[in-house]
Amino acid sequence: MVQVDTLPPLIRSEAQKTHLLIRDFIKRTPILTCTTLSALASTPQSAEALARTEWIGRDPARPKINLFFKCENLQTIGAFKLRGATSFLQRLGDEELAKGVVTHSSGNHAAALALAAKRRGAPAYIVMPRISMPNKIAATRSHGAEIVFSGSTAPEREAVAAEVMARTGATMVPPYDHPYIILGQGTLALEVEEQVGLMLDAGSGGKLDAVVAPLGGGGMLSGIATALSGTGIRVFGAEPSFQGGDDGRRGLAADPPERVTEVKTLTIADGLRTPVGVYPWSVISDREKVGGVFAVTEGQILAAMRLVLERMKVVIEPSSAVPLAVVLFNEDFRRRVEQEGGEQGWNICVVFSGGNTTVEAIGKLFAKEENEDER
Amino acid sequence: MVQVDTLPPLIRSEAQKTHLLIRDFIKRTPILTCTTLSALASTPQSAEALARTEWIGRDPARPKINLFFKCENLQTIGAFKLRGATSFLQRLGDEELAKGVVTHSSGNHAAALALAAKRRGAPAYIVMPRISMPNKIAATRSHGAEIVFSGSTAPEREAVAAEVMARTGATMVPPYDHPYIILGQGTLALEVEEQVGLMLDAGSGGKLDAVVAPLGGGGMLSGIATALSGTGIRVFGAEPSFQGGDDGRRGLAADPPERVTEVKTLTIADGLRTPVGVYPWSVISDREKVGGVFAVTEGQILAAMRLVLERMKVVIEPSSAVPLAVVLFNEDFRRRVEQEGGEQGWNICVVFSGGNTTVEAIGKLFAKEENEDER
Repeated sequence: MVQVDTLPPLIRSEAQKTHLLIRDFIKRTPILTCTTLSALASTPQSAEALARTEWIGRDPARPKINLFFKCENLQTIGAFKLRGATSFLQRLGDEELAKGVVTHSSGNHAAALALAAKRRGAPAYIVMPRISMPNKIAATRSHGAEIVFSGSTAPEREAVAAEVMARTGATMVPPYDHPYIILGQGTLALEVEEQVGLMLDAGSGGKLDAVVAPLGGGGMLSGIATALSGTGIRVFGAEPSFQGGDDGRRGLAADPPERVTEVKTLTIADGLRTPVGVYPWSVISDREKVGGVFAVTEGQILAAMRLVLERMKVVIEPSSAVPLAVVLFNEDFRRRVEQEGGEQGWNICVVFSGGNTTVEAIGKLFAKEENEDER
Repeated sequence: MVQVDTLPPLIRSEAQKTHLLIRDFIKRTPILTCTTLSALASTPQSAEALARTEWIGRDPARPKINLFFKCENLQTIGAFKLRGATSFLQRLGDEELAKGVVTHSSGNHAAALALAAKRRGAPAYIVMPRISMPNKIAATRSHGAEIVFSGSTAPEREAVAAEVMARTGATMVPPYDHPYIILGQGTLALEVEEQVGLMLDAGSGGKLDAVVAPLGGGGMLSGIATALSGTGIRVFGAEPSFQGGDDGRRGLAADPPERVTEVKTLTIADGLRTPVGVYPWSVISDREKVGGVFAVTEGQILAAMRLVLERMKVVIEPSSAVPLAVVLFNEDFRRRVEQEGGEQGWNICVVFSGGNTTVEAIGKLFAKEENEDER
């Protein structure tokens, strides 16, 4: 039986334990590099590029950046979410497993939970809005989950999920706001630490200086910050600024800092539309653990996504492009790298969180790119 | 001075020598695998799928297939063409290098030649139609080549190339119809042989049974067949059938077999629109070296490309999707694997020849997919 008082603390050693618990069920995803993108990141932005931003007329930053990419888009089910879901399922007892698990989140978490449950022989109930994309419904169903349709608003979905719990006794597995989930997502950072370390040892030497990860509900970012706490590796969050999607950044900028609890944005980075959760906020608001959160525009996200598809030849979903957009285009971040990294520069690992998109979605995104640019 | 009588024969040992000559200048591109695609290849096609093909009403083949993907889309310049261009440049003397090189092919060969020439300090003149895609022009120019614009027809481009040769004394480097080029492209097969062999040794055991590669001008396919000659690894070609784009298959099917010298097709596999060259044909028409050439429709090419982008999360250009389309959808090929591979099945390596496309091009391809399906 899971009890609140048995929940593990959010500390590095718990992330390490979690990695042992899940590593046979997840892929150790590869780290890619790209000479072109590292060169681009190390090139000052032009005056024309800055003219369309808040840094208009300013001297561009001159950071030296060596990029690494953690490819969770190549994770089983196409996103990092399998880590958290597996972490949760591994802690359930037989009785709980028999009753099953439920979630009212669609998308990558739903597919991840469906697969993690199937592997443990547990029924999975996924509450999804009737209007969900057919490919996401099919992906979830293909792992043997029972899909329960609901309306689209959060209250409608929560009501249906509560109904399922009452009927079946299933355990709710939230998408991000839970220590098991956070510790699960954080395991990717332990791999990054080791993999990039080995690559640097074999190559130019030096150490990993920073990890930049997308910030939505905050499960992954707080997990990474937990896992890397005390290592000296800096952790930064990346958010879309569109329609207030940068709730993490705004919450940290408030005096005193305060979690923003409601966000309504239709950013193309659709995995990052949610407010930061309570557990994640407890980590992200700790300046010892997260060095800062930076935001980028829709046009900058698209530009980064284009570079990854056309230059690296790797498919990512828009949410995954947000950290690279910060590295390439956010002058506050770039200035910081210039100042703290100096002549030697920084080795930065960017997390590609997922790659679940369709060729139609890619086509539509870039067909309307000019409009997005004006946002 | 290059003389015709000093040209190397098209034999395996020459491909091995060529690999030594170029390997410091090319990437040893990775081999990827994909459980989903191997499972799909090992699943019989449905009656509905066959109903739209020449195999309507037939019992579907039941091959067992384990897939490997040679990722030349991750090669420097984004395509295998750097191998052939480097092979050619490495054989030129100082005097020839000083005068430079010229080609009237645009696209991947042009970018490859530009880079290979730059590395040897040789001027490169690339004759391109005025209507070329801006990203291809920019890619070629970025490697320091001089672009000479021409009309779009072959005679117009050849005339401009001849003019450049007369003016500068530059050496013509053809895109595929030359032993240096063929031996260069063939080096990728030597890597495949070794890489897949190591993977099989470390995993399920067994041996590599076949390589399937795209067939356009035939430089790559004849190079692969040359490099693997005598190894017992079968080599197959893959072509688009649209508007007679399967000129290689048709030439082999003629009685007696005869090279088709003219092709006019607007297949989406735009790297495969050319007829097979003279040197390549001498290898491809040898049944000891190439086991057969198979064709697929535009709809099948798109379906394969979609699977690679959405499931493998890897970006390829349409020409690169043709071999996978053969493996998944061509019943003649699949029947052969069933019959020759039997219970154990075949380990098949599919060559992803290149990944140079744009997000706009991807969007357009799939926006008109329904029309293509009816071709």
